[in-house]
Amino acid sequence: MHKCPSGAAVLIPAMQAHLTNQHCWNSLPSPSVREAASMYSTAVAIFLVILVAALQSSEPPESPFPYHIPLDPDGILELSWNISYVQETIHFLLQVQGLRAGVLFGMSDRGELENADLIMLWTDGNRSYFADAWSDQKGQIHLDAQQDYQLLQVQRTSDGLSLLFKRPFVTCDPKDYLIEDDTVHLVYGILEEPFQSLEAINTSGLHTGLQRVQLLKSEVPTPDMPADVQTMEIRAPDVLIPDHETTYWCYVTELPQDFSRHHIIMYEAVVTEGNEALVHHMEVFQCAAEFKSFPHFNGPCDSKMKPDRLNYCRHVLAAWALGAKAFYYPEEAGVAFGGLGSSRYLRLEVHYHNPRNIRGRHDSSGIRLYYTATLRQFNAGIMELGLVYTPVMAIPPQETAFVLTGYCTDKCTMLALPPSGIRIFASQLHTHLTGRKVVTVLARGGQERKVVNRDNHYSPHFQEIRMLKKVVSVFPGDVLITSCTYNTEDRKLATVGGFGILEEMCVNYVHYYPQTELELCKSAVNDGYLQKYFHQVNSFNNEEVCTCPQASVPEQFTSVPWNSYNRDMLKALYRFAPISMHCNKTSAVRFQGEWNLQPLPEITSTLKDPTPNCPTGQAVSHTNPTTVVNWGRG
Amino acid sequence: MHKCPSGAAVLIPAMQAHLTNQHCWNSLPSPSVREAASMYSTAVAIFLVILVAALQSSEPPESPFPYHIPLDPDGILELSWNISYVQETIHFLLQVQGLRAGVLFGMSDRGELENADLIMLWTDGNRSYFADAWSDQKGQIHLDAQQDYQLLQVQRTSDGLSLLFKRPFVTCDPKDYLIEDDTVHLVYGILEEPFQSLEAINTSGLHTGLQRVQLLKSEVPTPDMPADVQTMEIRAPDVLIPDHETTYWCYVTELPQDFSRHHIIMYEAVVTEGNEALVHHMEVFQCAAEFKSFPHFNGPCDSKMKPDRLNYCRHVLAAWALGAKAFYYPEEAGVAFGGLGSSRYLRLEVHYHNPRNIRGRHDSSGIRLYYTATLRQFNAGIMELGLVYTPVMAIPPQETAFVLTGYCTDKCTMLALPPSGIRIFASQLHTHLTGRKVVTVLARGGQERKVVNRDNHYSPHFQEIRMLKKVVSVFPGDVLITSCTYNTEDRKLATVGGFGILEEMCVNYVHYYPQTELELCKSAVNDGYLQKYFHQVNSFNNEEVCTCPQASVPEQFTSVPWNSYNRDMLKALYRFAPISMHCNKTSAVRFQGEWNLQPLPEITSTLKDPTPNCPTGQAVSHTNPTTVVNWGRG
Repeated sequence: MHKCPSGAAVLIPAMQAHLTNQHCWNSLPSPSVREAASMYSTAVAIFLVILVAALQSSEPPESPFPYHIPLDPDGILELSWNISYVQETIHFLLQVQGLRAGVLFGMSDRGELENADLIMLWTDGNRSYFADAWSDQKGQIHLDAQQDYQLLQVQRTSDGLSLLFKRPFVTCDPKDYLIEDDTVHLVYGILEEPFQSLEAINTSGLHTGLQRVQLLKSEVPTPDMPADVQTMEIRAPDVLIPDHETTYWCYVTELPQDFSRHHIIMYEAVVTEGNEALVHHMEVFQCAAEFKSFPHFNGPCDSKMKPDRLNYCRHVLAAWALGAKAFYYPEEAGVAFGGLGSSRYLRLEVHYHNPRNIRGRHDSSGIRLYYTATLRQFNAGIMELGLVYTPVMAIPPQETAFVLTGYCTDKCTMLALPPSGIRIFASQLHTHLTGRKVVTVLARGGQERKVVNRDNHYSPHFQEIRMLKKVVSVFPGDVLITSCTYNTEDRKLATVGGFGILEEMCVNYVHYYPQTELELCKSAVNDGYLQKYFHQVNSFNNEEVCTCPQASVPEQFTSVPWNSYNRDMLKALYRFAPISMHCNKTSAVRFQGEWNLQPLPEITSTLKDPTPNCPTGQAVSHTNPTTVVNWGRG
Repeated sequence: MHKCPSGAAVLIPAMQAHLTNQHCWNSLPSPSVREAASMYSTAVAIFLVILVAALQSSEPPESPFPYHIPLDPDGILELSWNISYVQETIHFLLQVQGLRAGVLFGMSDRGELENADLIMLWTDGNRSYFADAWSDQKGQIHLDAQQDYQLLQVQRTSDGLSLLFKRPFVTCDPKDYLIEDDTVHLVYGILEEPFQSLEAINTSGLHTGLQRVQLLKSEVPTPDMPADVQTMEIRAPDVLIPDHETTYWCYVTELPQDFSRHHIIMYEAVVTEGNEALVHHMEVFQCAAEFKSFPHFNGPCDSKMKPDRLNYCRHVLAAWALGAKAFYYPEEAGVAFGGLGSSRYLRLEVHYHNPRNIRGRHDSSGIRLYYTATLRQFNAGIMELGLVYTPVMAIPPQETAFVLTGYCTDKCTMLALPPSGIRIFASQLHTHLTGRKVVTVLARGGQERKVVNRDNHYSPHFQEIRMLKKVVSVFPGDVLITSCTYNTEDRKLATVGGFGILEEMCVNYVHYYPQTELELCKSAVNDGYLQKYFHQVNSFNNEEVCTCPQASVPEQFTSVPWNSYNRDMLKALYRFAPISMHCNKTSAVRFQGEWNLQPLPEITSTLKDPTPNCPTGQAVSHTNPTTVVNWGRG
């Protein structure tokens, strides 16, 4: 099965018990505190030549790693990993092409190289070291007091080196990142020259970067594909990837004439070989049924040539982002497409991320749909939770963490959901550029019960559909509360809600079955109360917020003097004022009822953040009481 | 030195290394998990007789415990302790008179028996056990997963039992109380009968109580007394302690005619023997110099017979509370009293706490002043920081943790402090009944620099002068920020600032030297801005807060409809609006300058709560990097 090439693999002896098939090593240097400088020879270039020459080719071990992601746009670093939910541990395999003097890899809050949780592989020109480390506010590297990344194997490969190491999700080392279900900002760096000590390294001097990924993926078992499954690829034909950092490519295609109603039951990305690090995310949208036809556009989405009608191709059929695997619908449900009452037109959107401005690269990436004519028991649907796209919900400028909240009220779920409820199995969070966190919580009887989906490290640049680890049932009378946290430090004026890229959204697209008529369950503050707020601002500040009918809400927000009092009052208003509900069948058709001036849902108990359990191996625990003395008997 | 009576002391062997002079034991039962029920004999009464009979008298060990406090008003439980700041550990000696079936002792947030951190000594009628435990929200006892209280010795005494055990300040067990510098609410309970298991015990069925104390006292070395030191006792003559729970006794006395200027350099409590558990706190006040004489009153402070003029006896000379030891002034400073320009009249106030309504107890407790005619280099002074006593600072009803903040601004310290600054060496925090936390922070250059004094477990029933562990120097231009946190859950109307017991205060009396003219450095929100707030309340709610000149501020606060918006707006107002400063020589005389409509001090960086270090014995730590492989050489 697994060969042990001579002189190739090194295994640290203390870690031996954790490995099964890879008991290969030849030298066992005893661990040493060689932080102090050893005499550093000048011949760095020679050292590197020797290093590379000393490594012979060998076969990589059979891969037990289901997940892969390129870290850098040049494909020098590739990360593979697997997850043990039982041991709450991740094994990482980091493959490095053409290793120079070392690498760093790790995680940080939002991808910065300061205050990062790192592993370091470095050489002082003489010996080489591996350590669990951290970078401080200035980017300087320090050794962690507690070593939680365990190196399991170092192996040379045909074109570089591979490192195998593991880490618990939770380490309880205050210098370590807490690995949770949400987006993780991975950071990496390449060391071009030896360093005399770990403390001599500063991340600012290195070639570094970041990559976003969900590390702790849902491992719900995938249903078998039926015998009659068919596939269809929605791919842009031979796109010449533009040589600038960000391109959204739009391509319109259509289903065959007379294509009858089918169920999509799975889809996956098809990425042109060699472009893995350039294709950032892709989505397939279905166009609106109200238009008979759509122009066959193929070009950048921001092109002046793009027909306006393409704005009506917004209904998500499939979405993929870097690092995501195939998306399987639950075995009892599928997404209906084709047939009467639905548009034959589809729009593919591909986000190319080309920071190195690589030229001349051709691409035909896209999404492969797996579908069946044998309809499943339930249609799967998508429901939009969060905030209505309206300027009444606004974020003052210069805020680091301003929260806006949208509600799906009990009154709406009571009307629109079947008595047996719906089951949410996946979720896609969405904001524009200032979004930093998104969470949807389910409340019942005034009490928060569970988190539907949460991303405390949300990035608007990384929006993927995520399978939930546990399906969430929602019944009539339940409330769904979606909160988004925004950072407007770089804005000079208020950011209002709306469709524009410089406006904001707060949306959770939840995927569920059985499909209902409810497409939209969102809220916004009542406009009359917002006008009272503007009046109050005027009364306190003697400033001129125009409260005449001619002034638009964005204009009114623009003229608010943003002192701390007006900021705090706006927060208080959003926590207090009645809301207007959109409890809609489609974006234009409401369920019957009074939806204006609705009371905010009353929540009497909120969910607490779970206290992470520190790994049991690390904490001393006595569970027996101590016997004192036999009082009762002699 | 220390005798080992046969059959008396029991030492758990694992703890032996921690003891020095007390290696005495006769039986060493092996630790056992006798949680499961053993057959419980019915003869509880007989068991108790046997228990008491089995214990013979022995001498207590020589006391290495500088601190003592009775826990219960009947004097059944007495706690002694010492502190090792090097090991961050407290040794406790708990002495129990006439032990029945066990005791519990511990700490909780505010003295409640639920969610408490406990030690339990109990018997199942057969064997007896000691454990580190905790009580849940319902008062049920559970064993801690981590045992942090270590039992060192159990010894019978002539009239009961003594337990010696220790605990680190910080355990990092989430079920344990974090012992900090501030007030600690000790809880105790007496077990009257055996329990089959720890889990069978609920605190609600026990005779329990609480006692407040500062456990981590300042251990600043005490200066030697000069040869010419004299003493004077300020004691009420033969008070018959009233048989109700709370009495404040007032007694006026006077210094001898022609008593010249002296320095008080130390004082201590003199408590009548037998009344140690009844005398809760005592203060000596100097009366105002502006009145030539004061009536010689001797009676309850709330008596209708008490002359009004005693309200002018408010300048604190000495203050003692239960558990406090002698108070020493720094060797270079003393409090001036006597001589020209100061009143000869003193008022002693004694708070008797008599919850058992004991009758017929006589008392002559008081305070003994140590003073010298050889004046020290500096006069010590007291400065009042915090909020002006004015209704403009108010707390809405039904708040669990509402914060009010008072400022001593840079403008005032610039005017009033000498270039070499002042040194604060002690502090007494003060609020009325709803106060729960008090803190004063020093800021310099817009940045919070250090905590002057903080009590996160402050109780208005326990106000003692505390020596600071480190003297804090304050220079011209520094800002002192005093914040109080209030709980008004039991109030139906707003609580406004003022002198009344149902009104509130937020004060830190800081003791410092050299004395300056600055007696008061406090603030309150500007009244004009508060009126703007009332206008806003009206504009939003269409409610009637009278904003006419006839309405007093308390009346205005009473008519505010307290919804979340008005609460949040008031908080925002106090965070935003300009302040009026009292930068005063005495309560009536201001320093020259404009003190109205002052900007709030701008604070750009705040102090972070220190992360407590978990005890090193408990946490696994690796500090060495792991050597990977000798890349460079062969």
